[in-house]
Amino acid sequence: MAIFKAAVCQMLTGEDKKENLRRAESMVLEAARAGARLVVLPEMFNCPYRTRTFPDYAETYPDGPTLQMLARLAGENGIYLVGGSIPERAGGGRVFNTSFIFGPQGELLGRHRKLHLFDVELANGLRIQESSTLSYGQQVTVIPTAMCLIGIAICYDIRFPELARLMVLKGARVVVVPAAFNTTTGPAHWELTFRLRAVDNQAYFIAASPARNVGQGYPIYGHSLVVDPWGEVVAAAGEGEELILADIDLERVERVRRELPLLAHRRTDVYRLEEVPTGPETTP
Amino acid sequence: MAIFKAAVCQMLTGEDKKENLRRAESMVLEAARAGARLVVLPEMFNCPYRTRTFPDYAETYPDGPTLQMLARLAGENGIYLVGGSIPERAGGGRVFNTSFIFGPQGELLGRHRKLHLFDVELANGLRIQESSTLSYGQQVTVIPTAMCLIGIAICYDIRFPELARLMVLKGARVVVVPAAFNTTTGPAHWELTFRLRAVDNQAYFIAASPARNVGQGYPIYGHSLVVDPWGEVVAAAGEGEELILADIDLERVERVRRELPLLAHRRTDVYRLEEVPTGPETTP
Repeated sequence: MAIFKAAVCQMLTGEDKKENLRRAESMVLEAARAGARLVVLPEMFNCPYRTRTFPDYAETYPDGPTLQMLARLAGENGIYLVGGSIPERAGGGRVFNTSFIFGPQGELLGRHRKLHLFDVELANGLRIQESSTLSYGQQVTVIPTAMCLIGIAICYDIRFPELARLMVLKGARVVVVPAAFNTTTGPAHWELTFRLRAVDNQAYFIAASPARNVGQGYPIYGHSLVVDPWGEVVAAAGEGEELILADIDLERVERVRRELPLLAHRRTDVYRLEEVPTGPETTP
Repeated sequence: MAIFKAAVCQMLTGEDKKENLRRAESMVLEAARAGARLVVLPEMFNCPYRTRTFPDYAETYPDGPTLQMLARLAGENGIYLVGGSIPERAGGGRVFNTSFIFGPQGELLGRHRKLHLFDVELANGLRIQESSTLSYGQQVTVIPTAMCLIGIAICYDIRFPELARLMVLKGARVVVVPAAFNTTTGPAHWELTFRLRAVDNQAYFIAASPARNVGQGYPIYGHSLVVDPWGEVVAAAGEGEELILADIDLERVERVRRELPLLAHRRTDVYRLEEVPTGPETTP
């Protein structure tokens, strides 16, 4: 299948978990009805984006209600569903920011635990310490689908060119990034980052944000987008709740890689980029 | 010195080497008079941008007339002069696309030989094969100055995030890139590329292009620019011959690195990026 449809559900998230799940379900169904084969939810879609309360919304695989819903929606609609991310409770009292990815039979295809936690103190006073409640993932994640390999990263992960490159070197033609930039970093870097990652790596990049959440502490930027391998924005949302759709043309990936063979021109005799073999997830 | 002035000489280049050198000298002097401490010339500034004839303009260090002029201008004006790039003749009949960098006593501080040669065939019919007449450099280049370490790359080199990252990991606070994008890749990727390299690596990036050369085979984009470590364009040229000046604020580099500690947050336990030790330059 050289062309398939992808959808991003830029949904509003809030305090009420049941309401978050209801909105997610409604938008995923709308995307499936519109013919999307790949549907993407945003980062931390079952809870407010607030470091302190992430653990209150955490779930364990496979029994958590969010995870049950995602598996059911993927299977009932025969879609690939990137379940944005949610707080995942794991052994040892750890909570991860994790993306669970389900296939068209409702099967779990893989999970990505956010590698880079957002610990920053911006000039405008915005201070976030994700590592105060979250643990660090340890794996580069690429998921097999019937269309192509798909890389998965979460928000701050996309700031690190090494990770995007490694996903593409592992074969990803599409990279999906549930993310919640804010109204400081968003205008400055959001579109810029996804566009150049796509150009450098000659792959589609899909960024899925929650909608703007007026009045909550962390002002989410919104502006979900799909960028093609030449860096052109082929679909983009505004700030509010919105479903966006885009055709992913895998032939275009091959064409761009033929014309401007960046991946083939890497000087692997001068520099070497490698994944480091790791054990299970720990706090580094 | 926390703040110093940098200048880019976006000069017109053509068939007449003497005229190219005359224009270069005139713009470097203008930059020095304006107080620039770091002056940058564009890629292949002593010749037309045409693969076939690069060898006709090639010079050997230290006797070539272009190199003599650069050393003299740096010394007489007490400036750091990044001599854009020129075709450099080396042993074994090889010609490199090389940037020679001179210090305020007229001394050679280092040279960078272009690592990634531009061999492409774009959809619009533009076909370039730099490797038909040029050999490949083998080194990542960072140059010491009184202000800070400065990384040097040439044009297509900047397409490769690994190289920019390695220069910054070696300590570069400013990366200088003589470059000649064209009217296809320029509008699509020029500003985008330099802006995100600056954001990712939290350093100033200076891109120095020749002016638009109407009527020659390779249509040069122009639009030289200086980008700060937050990705903001602090100086930019149009298409024509133009000198641009910008303040480089090294305190701003440190401030951005403190607020959003991307370099400190790299997961070196998950991925490893390294320079590969090499022998002398050869064709790979």
